[in-house]
Amino acid sequence: MRVSIVGITGYSGLELLKILSNHPFVEVTSIYATKAINEKISDLFPFLSKVSDLVIKELDIEDIIQTSDLVFFATPSGIAKKYSEFFITKNFPVIDLSGDHRLSKESYEKWYQKDAISQEFLDEFLYSLADLDEVKGNSFISNPGCYATATELALIPLVAADVIELDSIIVDAKSGLSGAGKNPSPSSHFVSVNGNYTTYKVNSHQHIPEIMKVLTAYNPQIKSIQFSTSLLPINRGLVSTSYVRLKEGFTLADIDACYKKMYGDKIFIRLCQTLPDLHHVIGSNFVDIGYVYNEVTGILTIVSVIDNLIKGAAGQAVQNFNKMFGYSEETGLMMEPLYI
Amino acid sequence: MRVSIVGITGYSGLELLKILSNHPFVEVTSIYATKAINEKISDLFPFLSKVSDLVIKELDIEDIIQTSDLVFFATPSGIAKKYSEFFITKNFPVIDLSGDHRLSKESYEKWYQKDAISQEFLDEFLYSLADLDEVKGNSFISNPGCYATATELALIPLVAADVIELDSIIVDAKSGLSGAGKNPSPSSHFVSVNGNYTTYKVNSHQHIPEIMKVLTAYNPQIKSIQFSTSLLPINRGLVSTSYVRLKEGFTLADIDACYKKMYGDKIFIRLCQTLPDLHHVIGSNFVDIGYVYNEVTGILTIVSVIDNLIKGAAGQAVQNFNKMFGYSEETGLMMEPLYI
Amino acid sequence: MRVSIVGITGYSGLELLKILSNHPFVEVTSIYATKAINEKISDLFPFLSKVSDLVIKELDIEDIIQTSDLVFFATPSGIAKKYSEFFITKNFPVIDLSGDHRLSKESYEKWYQKDAISQEFLDEFLYSLADLDEVKGNSFISNPGCYATATELALIPLVAADVIELDSIIVDAKSGLSGAGKNPSPSSHFVSVNGNYTTYKVNSHQHIPEIMKVLTAYNPQIKSIQFSTSLLPINRGLVSTSYVRLKEGFTLADIDACYKKMYGDKIFIRLCQTLPDLHHVIGSNFVDIGYVYNEVTGILTIVSVIDNLIKGAAGQAVQNFNKMFGYSEETGLMMEPLYI
Amino acid sequence: MRVSIVGITGYSGLELLKILSNHPFVEVTSIYATKAINEKISDLFPFLSKVSDLVIKELDIEDIIQTSDLVFFATPSGIAKKYSEFFITKNFPVIDLSGDHRLSKESYEKWYQKDAISQEFLDEFLYSLADLDEVKGNSFISNPGCYATATELALIPLVAADVIELDSIIVDAKSGLSGAGKNPSPSSHFVSVNGNYTTYKVNSHQHIPEIMKVLTAYNPQIKSIQFSTSLLPINRGLVSTSYVRLKEGFTLADIDACYKKMYGDKIFIRLCQTLPDLHHVIGSNFVDIGYVYNEVTGILTIVSVIDNLIKGAAGQAVQNFNKMFGYSEETGLMMEPLYI
Repeated sequence: MRVSIVGITGYSGLELLKILSNHPFVEVTSIYATKAINEKISDLFPFLSKVSDLVIKELDIEDIIQTSDLVFFATPSGIAKKYSEFFITKNFPVIDLSGDHRLSKESYEKWYQKDAISQEFLDEFLYSLADLDEVKGNSFISNPGCYATATELALIPLVAADVIELDSIIVDAKSGLSGAGKNPSPSSHFVSVNGNYTTYKVNSHQHIPEIMKVLTAYNPQIKSIQFSTSLLPINRGLVSTSYVRLKEGFTLADIDACYKKMYGDKIFIRLCQTLPDLHHVIGSNFVDIGYVYNEVTGILTIVSVIDNLIKGAAGQAVQNFNKMFGYSEETGLMMEPLYI
Repeated sequence: MRVSIVGITGYSGLELLKILSNHPFVEVTSIYATKAINEKISDLFPFLSKVSDLVIKELDIEDIIQTSDLVFFATPSGIAKKYSEFFITKNFPVIDLSGDHRLSKESYEKWYQKDAISQEFLDEFLYSLADLDEVKGNSFISNPGCYATATELALIPLVAADVIELDSIIVDAKSGLSGAGKNPSPSSHFVSVNGNYTTYKVNSHQHIPEIMKVLTAYNPQIKSIQFSTSLLPINRGLVSTSYVRLKEGFTLADIDACYKKMYGDKIFIRLCQTLPDLHHVIGSNFVDIGYVYNEVTGILTIVSVIDNLIKGAAGQAVQNFNKMFGYSEETGLMMEPLYI
Repeated sequence: MRVSIVGITGYSGLELLKILSNHPFVEVTSIYATKAINEKISDLFPFLSKVSDLVIKELDIEDIIQTSDLVFFATPSGIAKKYSEFFITKNFPVIDLSGDHRLSKESYEKWYQKDAISQEFLDEFLYSLADLDEVKGNSFISNPGCYATATELALIPLVAADVIELDSIIVDAKSGLSGAGKNPSPSSHFVSVNGNYTTYKVNSHQHIPEIMKVLTAYNPQIKSIQFSTSLLPINRGLVSTSYVRLKEGFTLADIDACYKKMYGDKIFIRLCQTLPDLHHVIGSNFVDIGYVYNEVTGILTIVSVIDNLIKGAAGQAVQNFNKMFGYSEETGLMMEPLYI
Repeated sequence: MRVSIVGITGYSGLELLKILSNHPFVEVTSIYATKAINEKISDLFPFLSKVSDLVIKELDIEDIIQTSDLVFFATPSGIAKKYSEFFITKNFPVIDLSGDHRLSKESYEKWYQKDAISQEFLDEFLYSLADLDEVKGNSFISNPGCYATATELALIPLVAADVIELDSIIVDAKSGLSGAGKNPSPSSHFVSVNGNYTTYKVNSHQHIPEIMKVLTAYNPQIKSIQFSTSLLPINRGLVSTSYVRLKEGFTLADIDACYKKMYGDKIFIRLCQTLPDLHHVIGSNFVDIGYVYNEVTGILTIVSVIDNLIKGAAGQAVQNFNKMFGYSEETGLMMEPLYI
């Protein structure tokens, strides 16, 4: 299959290109950006020398249709939505890694502070957590956010089984800087980040409604979650630490059963004996989940870790792609974790 | 005043020496360690060249008494307690930075897994959060732990004013590696820590009973706290993120009032307009506290940050020292934060 | 082919396992270590969960022969040499990643301060820079050191073409901590390394005679090189910065010609327009080489960068393996650089 | 004395404010910037809360003269020179931390690619390496650059004593990111720098002519130096590694004598038994210098380390200030190194 990537110069776009370069059934035929038009991607990013000879093109939706069979949007929010109508009308497959098609019209406009496309077009897009959702037959996929992926996968089994107090969910999530994108700013300056730990967007992160939408699909009784995000002084990796109170009568054995039932046969979800750390997963499409129960407080602490650019973006997108077209879901995705 | 330091080769011991070298009313006369006996401290630690000419001595409690007027113990837990009886009997002042005199006999033996000294001797030691407690007249001070300091200072005003649900306290605390001491181990190896984030000792950290002891002193109704600790890939700095549910009827204005009332006149406590980050405080004796209230969930998120070696150890010990002997509490402690 | 790995718990051993797990013509059948015997490698290293089910065995050279067709030694110096005679006698193929078979008996004993095996057995081993040397037909390979690889590849074209003053070579090389192995020590403690830069083993690094041996093979007139090594506060990556004086009459165009002639068709050597940085190569088997000439001083500055665990160890070993057995040299080695 | 600082929001300006806040004979009365005019410096930089209450003013040279007795320029190159004539005409003391007054008119225009002021005004400024130069009586000081300071202090004793081959000097210098200033750019983005090592401005760094000017003052025979600069993934700290060839007949003992003679009585210069690392000096005004001689190659390797913001900028500026006005040179500058 021939695929194209819009937003090639961002972290997710480059990660897509890397993963797809090793995918046995895919050829990346077109890459688009807003700068460095007509330059070879390997001149702009010498790490791609001898990996890719592609030349960057200016975004042209007709060219996408002519040169490829599917397009990935690895763009900041606000770009992909401009072209949804076009691709839907042409029935040309789209996987959108941005936030543009994850929420309802109303919710998007509230949390992203931007105009949304019509609900009708939004409804064409399937939000797919690639490890859980069935996507065969869908042509338009909205790929989950990084914080949302790690947090949803940690909480869904508990919420679905109704074993926790639904008003007790508190999530303290942390991400490496690549999650914030490439834009140079005072807050992404090396000196500001190195040796530091900064909490931001408390109660206002745009992944909150995304997580709520997913969790309420599994259990409509959930009213809200407490969610904070912080920057870790690392490049890659995302940790979501969730605190939930078990409902009376449930024990750690019940929790084990919930997770095993839902994740026992999942290729990319690994349930850990101890709490996982980031070195377990960076460089891979795995999500590792571990938890500890406190009998004194009744609180279950769940730690889920992912590579924010792979499971939290490009890897999950390729996994969704594989499922769309009936390839084995791990095709091209069995990169081992870097470890160090 | 002449003071001596036991445990000079550890991070806290060295930090004490640095701070006290600039204290106008103190001369460090003796420094003790278990290795490098008879070596100049500046030969072992060249950063102290032209700062200190002291020679390391083997621990000798008679020598302490002869050469100084007060001793700081900056030792791992299990050392200071061996000499408590001696110093108490001699009425020779001690400031213990270790955990040996912070808990009751029973609690110490449970959480530290070591024999405690008798309750009678433990009772001689005053646990003093230097920013809050009165220590004049006491000769034996137990200096608080680093996680405990940041967490207690974040929660005391709320607990004391009884404005939060007492069973709702969840603390997600994170520290740089110096908090774990100097001992080389697989988990302190550079490669293991760099680019990583590891959660450890969930529900079992020895600062849990210390925090509980202090909070219950302010409000005996508290039954437990949920507390986790993680390692940040940084050298210095500690963040304590607390989540608490406001009691019905209380608002953010009430919270503001609680903090201002208790901390408005404190030299080293700074209440922040926004959530503080570690660059605010590293290198200084300040604790910065900020918070955000979520009207949807009813949860207040409090972030408190300290330099774990200064406010969380040596700086607070010197502040306690100043209060013991009637010096202005900031004497020798007005180092500005490093910032970067 | 069935292969075994001795020293599986070290960084190079684990990297070998990762690379070979994706090699289409290889099955790793046995892994050996001195600890964690009978444990699953994925229990010890959870990042390998769902990647490898192998169980760690105690080193047993008869077992190696029975269960595999070739053995990689990824051990500290001093281990592999003990078994050389055995494997040579059995004509059982060995690829030694350690320094045990790189030098002459005399040189090894001087620089490694250990007894060497007999020169006769040393002569059985071919030292192979995988990008340059022919290894087909050899059964015993000595894989180059990390500093040596980056430095030799930077200098060989210049030395071979005799375009530089041979007494002018000065190398300022720097490596991430993984190059120093896993052993916890004060100098590998996170706090010691983070935010620091330490120069060590000036004039005494054991890769000096290795580099000299290779360079003199290309040009016997070289008498010595000035070589220093430093620790960068990073996990992976090695930079070798070489300064050499051009012989009179030679120009930058001549230098370009030297490098292109020797490296123009090499898969894993990339000549850069500008000076390369580590993000170009980490995670890959590439070596990137760039240089700048100063007409005022007559000095050519050459920067070569590698991933010390891949091109500097396991990747090069697999490349040598491929060449030994007639596989295309890039088989299993086309991992893209991580980039960030 | 009342002093003012221009460029308060940069790293050097803030470091000056921190140092001067603890200087017993100085009051900072005015601070100037191009942004955040009329804001309290502690609102912009919360780390300064309870340290400074100053309000940022727009640059106004008349205001400088009215509110202070001396002005520090901690500005990027190109700013201070605009006001030189004014301050020289008024005979109002200036310490310029920027590069504007370090070079001759011709040299400045070549290396900084900006117009210089007239040579006549340039001649009014004394370039002062604070540890070596006499400045009493001078009203206009040009403070050295960070790379220049570390490199000059490493080489001056050797050059002055004529014990090295003057055409053999090769300097491989490395700096933390704060040396590149605060400006957000792709190359200062956290993700680009973290885990990386980048060499830049080889043969074209503007500190080359500065170093040459100083070295030729000690030995006019020097024709050129080879000088490269690289970015270390750290915030603070600068390492200058110099390689020089001893003249025939000179030994390590001669080198020892050179350094001791020149630096034996210097407060802030520490000669080390072994090669120094950055943890020795960060947070302090010290420069540590160590060296190793290679009898095989005849090359002496010298490593000098400084805190680029203190000895390489603000600390040295205050030291120059102290010498200008007859204060003991260490006044306000005896901060111990941070160590970790």
